[in-house]
Amino acid sequence: MSEPLDLPSLWSHEPHSLLRFTPGDLVADIDPDATPGFRGVKSDAPTLQEERNVRFAELQEMLYARSRVDDTRSVLLVLQGMDTAGKGGIVKHVVGGCNPQGVDYFNFGKPTPEELSHHFLWRIRKALPRPGHIGVFDRSHYEDVLIVRVHNLVPPAVWEPRYDEINAFERELVESGTSLVKVAMFVSLDEQKKRLAERLERPDKYWKYNPGDIDERLKWPLYQEAYQAMLDRTSTEYAPWHVVPCNRKWYSRLAVTELMIEALKQLNMSWPPPDFDVEAEKKRLKKA
Amino acid sequence: MSEPLDLPSLWSHEPHSLLRFTPGDLVADIDPDATPGFRGVKSDAPTLQEERNVRFAELQEMLYARSRVDDTRSVLLVLQGMDTAGKGGIVKHVVGGCNPQGVDYFNFGKPTPEELSHHFLWRIRKALPRPGHIGVFDRSHYEDVLIVRVHNLVPPAVWEPRYDEINAFERELVESGTSLVKVAMFVSLDEQKKRLAERLERPDKYWKYNPGDIDERLKWPLYQEAYQAMLDRTSTEYAPWHVVPCNRKWYSRLAVTELMIEALKQLNMSWPPPDFDVEAEKKRLKKA
Repeated sequence: MSEPLDLPSLWSHEPHSLLRFTPGDLVADIDPDATPGFRGVKSDAPTLQEERNVRFAELQEMLYARSRVDDTRSVLLVLQGMDTAGKGGIVKHVVGGCNPQGVDYFNFGKPTPEELSHHFLWRIRKALPRPGHIGVFDRSHYEDVLIVRVHNLVPPAVWEPRYDEINAFERELVESGTSLVKVAMFVSLDEQKKRLAERLERPDKYWKYNPGDIDERLKWPLYQEAYQAMLDRTSTEYAPWHVVPCNRKWYSRLAVTELMIEALKQLNMSWPPPDFDVEAEKKRLKKA
Repeated sequence: MSEPLDLPSLWSHEPHSLLRFTPGDLVADIDPDATPGFRGVKSDAPTLQEERNVRFAELQEMLYARSRVDDTRSVLLVLQGMDTAGKGGIVKHVVGGCNPQGVDYFNFGKPTPEELSHHFLWRIRKALPRPGHIGVFDRSHYEDVLIVRVHNLVPPAVWEPRYDEINAFERELVESGTSLVKVAMFVSLDEQKKRLAERLERPDKYWKYNPGDIDERLKWPLYQEAYQAMLDRTSTEYAPWHVVPCNRKWYSRLAVTELMIEALKQLNMSWPPPDFDVEAEKKRLKKA
């Protein structure tokens, strides 16, 4: 098997370093239209996406294979973003390139009464990826410092300590072998309006529309503050945030694919050695 | 959205009728090399597979969308077959065409002590697909009348009644809205030898090899009997078996894709109607 190029030449810089959020960076400065580090054009995207999905899938298979020989590591993709930012598209077009066998996907909606009766991390802990799996959180524990903060669902004395609790939780995850790829997806208000309007035009999209999306939209300034605080306070050395401009879906998908490939490469994996005598098995098989 | 052709012209007959097992059919007559109903050639497969995966994914999305408006139906793909028959390839290349959001995949290995302390259907019931989901059983409750029978893991007085119990269980599933697509995959002993040998040649395949596979291989006559009994006794009107020749991977993948598309078409779905006033929302959005 020949080794594919690991930084396709259409990228001038590696997305994992270029998109990494450094505390102090301003959410107000993010340009959702931008395509940082990519020097190709939209028409390059389909072929490149396909190629890189193959690479992603190979690495995912290796991670899965290694879990059969006691490597318990896993990679968790955390997706946060306003409605229409394209979380679903990442799941479909990026994660969808992997073998479903090795994917643990969770969508975190409004908490149930049972979930609310527990600590906010209770339902999160139950959804962590199994060893060897790629976990996907479509929304996550970060809702507990985003929508919860914006809507005053709990008093500041409750949400305020959560940033530190999240950091402690994520440190624990990383120490126990789960790499985090945290992606904050940014779409502009104009583009969001277009995408919501499309959902109202197409009967095959009605199911994705929720009248509450408009209410959230009107609270963008408050969300912007909440995102700023979240990024400033939870982008750590061991679990940094990546900020992905999402007005161009093709860009955001390519970028997240590279982030996942990089996280898997960081695990320095190789195919697991056989736990049987290869030559003896070849002889047995010949006779069988 | 234009309606794709639902029986691509490369098929002379619909796989769901052609491959359907009728009690009395003989397992000994199955030709794993055959490509029943397909009048194209291998080189037609990649494009057709891609096209049909798109159709499959559209129908899967509709099923998922409908679960948001109280349609609780689901489709469960049950994969059974000897080692190397290609179950994993079906998961990767057929189910992998769907959105991971809507897939509930389970791999049934050797039962745990806890599972063994319960009725054999206990662990199966816990893994049933959620409403709106495509469930995938990679091995299933049928192991309890296959490997269990062949290895005398329980006495005949225990496994014998299981055929009826399975039928009753599956009738209950179907009545509660889960369509079953049961696929028995047949690979020849020669082809199996080749595939096992390949696993012993390639370090990236060692992890898929298990010395026990050879022991199972030597028991093929006993498995053949067990498969015959399983097919005869559990291929029902409401949950028929389909017998898929698997020496040609491209054929088996195309065939299973058609079986899934047909099962979804049988649900006669349409996109769910909006549960909001579309025109009013358009006005709200304009101002937002």
